[in-house]
Amino acid sequence: MHSIPQLQDKVSELFDTRNYLSTPNELYEPIQYTLSQGGKRLRPLLSLISCSMFGGNLSEVENAAIGLEIFHNFTLLHDDIMDQSPMRRGMPSVYTKWDTNTAILSGDTMFVLAYDYVIKTNPEILYNTLVLFNQTAREVCEGQQYDMNFENLLHTNIEEYMEMIRLKTAVLIAAALKMGALAARASQYDQDAIYDFGILIGIAFQLRDDFLDAFGNQAVFGKPIGNDIVTNKKTFLYLKAFEKANPAQKNQLIQAFAMTDSQQKVKQVLEIYESLQIRHETDNIILELHRQALEILNKINISQENRNSILPFLHKLVGREV
Amino acid sequence: MHSIPQLQDKVSELFDTRNYLSTPNELYEPIQYTLSQGGKRLRPLLSLISCSMFGGNLSEVENAAIGLEIFHNFTLLHDDIMDQSPMRRGMPSVYTKWDTNTAILSGDTMFVLAYDYVIKTNPEILYNTLVLFNQTAREVCEGQQYDMNFENLLHTNIEEYMEMIRLKTAVLIAAALKMGALAARASQYDQDAIYDFGILIGIAFQLRDDFLDAFGNQAVFGKPIGNDIVTNKKTFLYLKAFEKANPAQKNQLIQAFAMTDSQQKVKQVLEIYESLQIRHETDNIILELHRQALEILNKINISQENRNSILPFLHKLVGREV
Repeated sequence: MHSIPQLQDKVSELFDTRNYLSTPNELYEPIQYTLSQGGKRLRPLLSLISCSMFGGNLSEVENAAIGLEIFHNFTLLHDDIMDQSPMRRGMPSVYTKWDTNTAILSGDTMFVLAYDYVIKTNPEILYNTLVLFNQTAREVCEGQQYDMNFENLLHTNIEEYMEMIRLKTAVLIAAALKMGALAARASQYDQDAIYDFGILIGIAFQLRDDFLDAFGNQAVFGKPIGNDIVTNKKTFLYLKAFEKANPAQKNQLIQAFAMTDSQQKVKQVLEIYESLQIRHETDNIILELHRQALEILNKINISQENRNSILPFLHKLVGREV
Repeated sequence: MHSIPQLQDKVSELFDTRNYLSTPNELYEPIQYTLSQGGKRLRPLLSLISCSMFGGNLSEVENAAIGLEIFHNFTLLHDDIMDQSPMRRGMPSVYTKWDTNTAILSGDTMFVLAYDYVIKTNPEILYNTLVLFNQTAREVCEGQQYDMNFENLLHTNIEEYMEMIRLKTAVLIAAALKMGALAARASQYDQDAIYDFGILIGIAFQLRDDFLDAFGNQAVFGKPIGNDIVTNKKTFLYLKAFEKANPAQKNQLIQAFAMTDSQQKVKQVLEIYESLQIRHETDNIILELHRQALEILNKINISQENRNSILPFLHKLVGREV
């Protein structure tokens, strides 16, 4: 198979020269702005890794991979309106830079654009690719709805939270991997296995995000530490803390989350998290998901050499160093 | 071919028993609400008419027709947010009944749902159906953007207006017809001809809407008369009036459109329209489009009997009596 750096170059090549401008400018400029910002391009990279790992021809998955990335960026664009997030990747989000109407309509057009690429897939695998893409797109919308529901709930539980991040984050990672397998004409067993593997990795990826928000190094993480705490986001850490806390500690948590001084609030909440061993609890579950994922990977029908060449990347992914 | 009433029954059958509810409820209830309101279901009816007229099997176009109708309703849902239209089909629009976030995300999910149906199309014609569907979806978004641009412009011209309604309204009508032809395996010539026919009919359909807003009978039209005038909408009538007016009449128009009393404003503008023979001008262009459309229809390779059986429907359509 190709090396990870080779595949990373290939992903850059797929996106860097692409121009989305067209008329009317008002519609396409925000699309060009969004898609030229880059980001990690993780999902198309996973499609290429998977396709290569299963011995497939990269050209068979390229269009679906581009479509997935455009779809992902479309969801971020609409999510930013819904979550009122003024910034994205260090730049003003589209609804801030332009306005809400522009963000809605440019987003819709990006969704069409995503399909424009996906439908270029080899007719032999077009239907299966579309079924996977559609199911994923629908689940991502469902995940966003659950996430918004949680905002308005006083409490939720870890099980519901895990289901939310499965839908909102993991299914797209799983689908990216499965598309590569599908393009490589891997067996149904292998396609399903790489999907299940992707779900576990995707959930671990999100939990690591939750973890780093509290315990990360801002310079490495790229986002301000404690933002989830400041915004009272019901992350795994938050829910686990409430689950483990005794009545006195619960009161402390409630008081801490009600604080208005952000710096003091983060400090206070982190102290309670540490006393409840939330760092350890979160690390443990990520390790367990990682272990289960590797167990699946070991049963997939690829050479040990290919397996070995992707393992370091996977470790970094779950550590969120890519 | 089937009679129009038979095909209308078939369309009702396709939609009336369908249930879109799923979890999370917050996401799917607005979809069920939107899609159970009915509306004319004109686009799927046109697909069925076209398929039947070309001797096709209706089951070959049903899924694409359902997809087109769901797509159309999705665009209305998002348009209502952008245009701040509180009502739709006599009911509160989704963003009014729920909120903007719900309308954005339920709309996105409806778009996925539309594709869910379209991709069930026979693999033999799946790719061509998807290309047509995607091109249409993109053009409808472009049309909505031009429409929003016009709101912010002091003036536009008739040519730009015609291009806007071609994109916003006519391409979907044309695509509905072409999908029927494609499903019936009509020749490329016939597919393209029925598309061109649809564009002309679609533009005429929109111009008749403009016409009836000013000169219609409220009981028949179903919407309050003069709404376009009250909201200073740059319709064909508005643009034609400004085009024909001499400097004095232009001043009268500007003064009339600046009036704050709605009833007086409509009365005043209609008087100027009548003095400029805008009723006659609009009727003329609709008749001319209709004539060109029939010229195309006459060259399409279908029996005279089939042609005759759809003509009364087309007359009614351009008269907006269906």
